[in-house]
Amino acid sequence: MFGFGKSKVKIHPEVDGGVHKGSANYAGGTLSCKCPDHKVTVNIKGNCAYNHVCGCSKCWKPEGALFSQVAVVGRDNLTVGENGNKLQIVDESAPIQRYACRGCGVHMYGRIENTDHPFHGFDFIHTELSTTPGFEEPKFAAFVSSIIEGGFNPDDMDGVRERLKQLGLEPYDVLAPGLMDAIATHAAKKSGALPA
Amino acid sequence: MFGFGKSKVKIHPEVDGGVHKGSANYAGGTLSCKCPDHKVTVNIKGNCAYNHVCGCSKCWKPEGALFSQVAVVGRDNLTVGENGNKLQIVDESAPIQRYACRGCGVHMYGRIENTDHPFHGFDFIHTELSTTPGFEEPKFAAFVSSIIEGGFNPDDMDGVRERLKQLGLEPYDVLAPGLMDAIATHAAKKSGALPA
Repeated sequence: MFGFGKSKVKIHPEVDGGVHKGSANYAGGTLSCKCPDHKVTVNIKGNCAYNHVCGCSKCWKPEGALFSQVAVVGRDNLTVGENGNKLQIVDESAPIQRYACRGCGVHMYGRIENTDHPFHGFDFIHTELSTTPGFEEPKFAAFVSSIIEGGFNPDDMDGVRERLKQLGLEPYDVLAPGLMDAIATHAAKKSGALPA
Repeated sequence: MFGFGKSKVKIHPEVDGGVHKGSANYAGGTLSCKCPDHKVTVNIKGNCAYNHVCGCSKCWKPEGALFSQVAVVGRDNLTVGENGNKLQIVDESAPIQRYACRGCGVHMYGRIENTDHPFHGFDFIHTELSTTPGFEEPKFAAFVSSIIEGGFNPDDMDGVRERLKQLGLEPYDVLAPGLMDAIATHAAKKSGALPA
């Protein structure tokens, strides 16, 4: 009765029936909010990178999903299309400024303004909002243990990690190793431990 | 010419030739500092838990080691033996107060005084300081990406993670999942997301 694909563990509607591969040469698409009309749209040039499901509590996710699904694009490849006047920043003090639709609450993109942040230059998007399929699929799961902070039963974590592995989404309690190395390299260059 | 066991990647002298299993019923031992005389000793009752190698920059490690090796014991099972007057706290403001020997610099144990800390009640020790073998062996690698912050070349990280896996020390960029879940559970009980 809880069946979503092969498991009763619901990760996110976009992956629960299995991860669908995107197209390598995807030229970009339009993200659209969930309002019935006067939809906010955001145009993306080219494909996304580092798409993943994320257990942190900050990102927008659809009702009932345990994880959000989030990817990055170069900030120069993102432009707000229609009804941008409905966008507002969720939390001005957060490192990532998330622009949400005042109508439906969906986060249309997240932007980092701090030029010292290791990921400055990347915007964060939710590819499930695309009106056409083709964005690169999620490839790993980040901040998995953090779902407990949202009230998930710690006794059920084995099942979550097992399901993520089954879906090919290797679970990490922070970001994937390549990204963690990038953050550490950024810190090392700043401190002088590595040449800038 | 760089040979340490099967790899030129040096993790820590205690594991570079292969991880040696401890004994399940180890009754405890004495840790001893590296001074030629008037050694500081610390007595441990029973076995340790969660022994691991750690890439963070805070813990003591032997000269030339890329990782430290660190485990926990219940604080009631640790008592300072001889020459305790040589101990001093490395950084009073750190969450873990590390007691180092003023003579040789070795950290004899780390203690958490903040009763709100998720790991309050555990002391941190370096089992390699034991005068007798038998403490439980390291079982995973924590804070692996952090070695870059110490100046390690990020291009060589694949080799480090590969070597850790070869040694049976699964690499994580934070702590192992069970410990991350424990930290998140502690936070959730504090916030009210889970019943206390």
